[in-house]
Amino acid sequence: MNIEEMGKRAKAAAALTANLSTDLKNKVLRDAAGMLLAASGDLIHENQHDREHAQEKGISEGLLDRLTLTDDRIRGMAEGLRQVASLDDPIGNVSEMKRRPNDLLIGKMTVPLGVIGVIYEARPNVTSDVFALCFKTGNVSILKGGSDAINSNRAIVAILRRALKQNGVPVDALQLIEDTSREATREFMHLNRYVDLLIPRGGAGLIAAVVKEATIPVIETGTGNCHVYVDETADLGMAVNIIFNAKTQRIGVCNAEESLLVHRDIAGQLLPKLEEKLKEKKVELRADEAAAKFLTNSVPATEEDWGKEYLDYILSIKTVTSLKEAVDHINRYNTGHSEAIVTTNYEHAQQFLRDVDAAAVYVNASTRFTDGFEFGFGAEIGISTQKLHARGPMGLDALTTYKYIIYGNGQIRS
Amino acid sequence: MNIEEMGKRAKAAAALTANLSTDLKNKVLRDAAGMLLAASGDLIHENQHDREHAQEKGISEGLLDRLTLTDDRIRGMAEGLRQVASLDDPIGNVSEMKRRPNDLLIGKMTVPLGVIGVIYEARPNVTSDVFALCFKTGNVSILKGGSDAINSNRAIVAILRRALKQNGVPVDALQLIEDTSREATREFMHLNRYVDLLIPRGGAGLIAAVVKEATIPVIETGTGNCHVYVDETADLGMAVNIIFNAKTQRIGVCNAEESLLVHRDIAGQLLPKLEEKLKEKKVELRADEAAAKFLTNSVPATEEDWGKEYLDYILSIKTVTSLKEAVDHINRYNTGHSEAIVTTNYEHAQQFLRDVDAAAVYVNASTRFTDGFEFGFGAEIGISTQKLHARGPMGLDALTTYKYIIYGNGQIRS
Repeated sequence: MNIEEMGKRAKAAAALTANLSTDLKNKVLRDAAGMLLAASGDLIHENQHDREHAQEKGISEGLLDRLTLTDDRIRGMAEGLRQVASLDDPIGNVSEMKRRPNDLLIGKMTVPLGVIGVIYEARPNVTSDVFALCFKTGNVSILKGGSDAINSNRAIVAILRRALKQNGVPVDALQLIEDTSREATREFMHLNRYVDLLIPRGGAGLIAAVVKEATIPVIETGTGNCHVYVDETADLGMAVNIIFNAKTQRIGVCNAEESLLVHRDIAGQLLPKLEEKLKEKKVELRADEAAAKFLTNSVPATEEDWGKEYLDYILSIKTVTSLKEAVDHINRYNTGHSEAIVTTNYEHAQQFLRDVDAAAVYVNASTRFTDGFEFGFGAEIGISTQKLHARGPMGLDALTTYKYIIYGNGQIRS
Repeated sequence: MNIEEMGKRAKAAAALTANLSTDLKNKVLRDAAGMLLAASGDLIHENQHDREHAQEKGISEGLLDRLTLTDDRIRGMAEGLRQVASLDDPIGNVSEMKRRPNDLLIGKMTVPLGVIGVIYEARPNVTSDVFALCFKTGNVSILKGGSDAINSNRAIVAILRRALKQNGVPVDALQLIEDTSREATREFMHLNRYVDLLIPRGGAGLIAAVVKEATIPVIETGTGNCHVYVDETADLGMAVNIIFNAKTQRIGVCNAEESLLVHRDIAGQLLPKLEEKLKEKKVELRADEAAAKFLTNSVPATEEDWGKEYLDYILSIKTVTSLKEAVDHINRYNTGHSEAIVTTNYEHAQQFLRDVDAAAVYVNASTRFTDGFEFGFGAEIGISTQKLHARGPMGLDALTTYKYIIYGNGQIRS
């Protein structure tokens, strides 16, 4: 099917899914969970084709691992569908209803965005995750998964569409672009007439390519060059704990710490303790000159290090002489993700919260908490590092918009 | 100055304007108002140059009128600045602060978007309007006005920057792109590194061009193909009043009615009365066959009419046999702006509110109320017809975003 036709079908389906009852949406999600489990064998079989092709192409071990479906992973996908079913439905709520001087009642009703396009890499589990979040919010989705996962995705989508069909919901509430050519992807990114939002999910390269090419509005979910700043009044034990956690608890994630800023007055007390602790995980330290003096083992940090998202057991360390210098450095090099201060000073805490420009700004806590589940949203479609529409962890609410509804009794404008 | 350098300066200024006190921001706006009034003579003189060049080029009367500055219009600009000064400052408010199970306190703080680019046509009054809204919300603005107004804009911006300077605010909080070449505009639309949001203000052509070219996120403010649907239970007098108001109170605006839908069962009663009333304004009626039977003077409507924004004394009229047919027609042809039903039936009213996909959906009121002032926002930067970030009339809130602020006491993630 051509891309334009898919857009048309999606738009038509969106008019019908926008106002499905919550009960029906939840039933579809729970049915789909059961059907995925029942089809585990088939899914693993289809996935085997993908893995063979990918191995012939010689993809990396990491990518191959992400591509692989196992019984366990399929159970995880089913569990994800059920979890989304258990969340509150955000659609159709009315808020801020106010009476105007002319007696008009004006309020905001949450509604779906409409048609959401998602472009992602060869990770078949994303297919059911994205469907669940979009469908629960009354949206229709058009998915473009990595070409290496095409057989797996086709099989998963077929099952999800069967769950829609058996509940009387238009199957075009979920469509997969099977044409994995560049031209098809390009056409997809220009489908403004039918697609309301495009979300790229994947590495920095994929995201940059989509932002550059797409004419549809895009939400960037992104990279994290996160800092912890230890000010001169910090509790040292707390600082070491937070840095150890933010840096090493999971290194490959966007909310991990990549850089440490430390006030010069406390560097001599903090750094030796910290180095001792970070040795447990063999963290490489890249330090400026002033910091290096207090470390037994470090390499000199270069300008490039300040802007780097290592996603590895590496930490850059910079000394500063004031809160302002720390904030300026962060606002210059950060990626708008998560930033933390460790302090006991009230005024410093408030200033840091106010002045740092990032999606999530912490006092005395690890940056690792920036996550839809940790924030209590019950789900997450990504972490937005841009400022429009949604910032930070995006839960179901981020997939909704609103319309104004107005109750009148004959008002005309004079 | 080159565009890239302007972006850099804007970004640097934005870090400083983000947290200005409300009192200082208001003082700048009030000072600027006084300074514009004091400089009326100079402004009109500069504007005269623009008008002469424009006349040599042979621009239309309408465009020339929009380009023209008079004492009255300058008073209007000053009044606009003072009005924005009198509005509540939306920046720095914290909402939804919740305690998580691990004792983290997580809330949302409103913050400026950062750097806002605005591309508009040759209307010098927009220059001060946009500055006021952006500055009040702590944002920095880069303006690209129509080349025909360059002398006027340069003079206005010089005054506004003086108001900034005398209050110790970085003058780069407002910058005007003086290079009116296509290349400069193109470069501006790709300044993702420095500009957070681009708002095109002007006709459909300008907006479409910006959406197509820009890689910066764009908010479309737009066109309105607005409908009024009169259902079979409507109060006829109310229906005639609302249609007369929505169609003729001001024809050149995006919230004016362009198309009437009428239930077949009431067409015979409504249309003769309506035709009589619309004669007062010599409104041309373009009707489908069923409607034409009840009209003494109409031309046949074509397919093209259903999608047309006339901005003129023309109304298309279509009969329908059900609420569903009306809603389907609206959702097919509307531009996501404003839609109204006239009815006395409770269930029809609720269904219409729920099922119509538009920024503002009315029961028993004129579509002409879709406006930031009528909605009680006290200001308006445009009416968004898209779904991301802001929908409908955009007041000061639409120029803000939020960050999560998190108060901890040493929490780490396990």
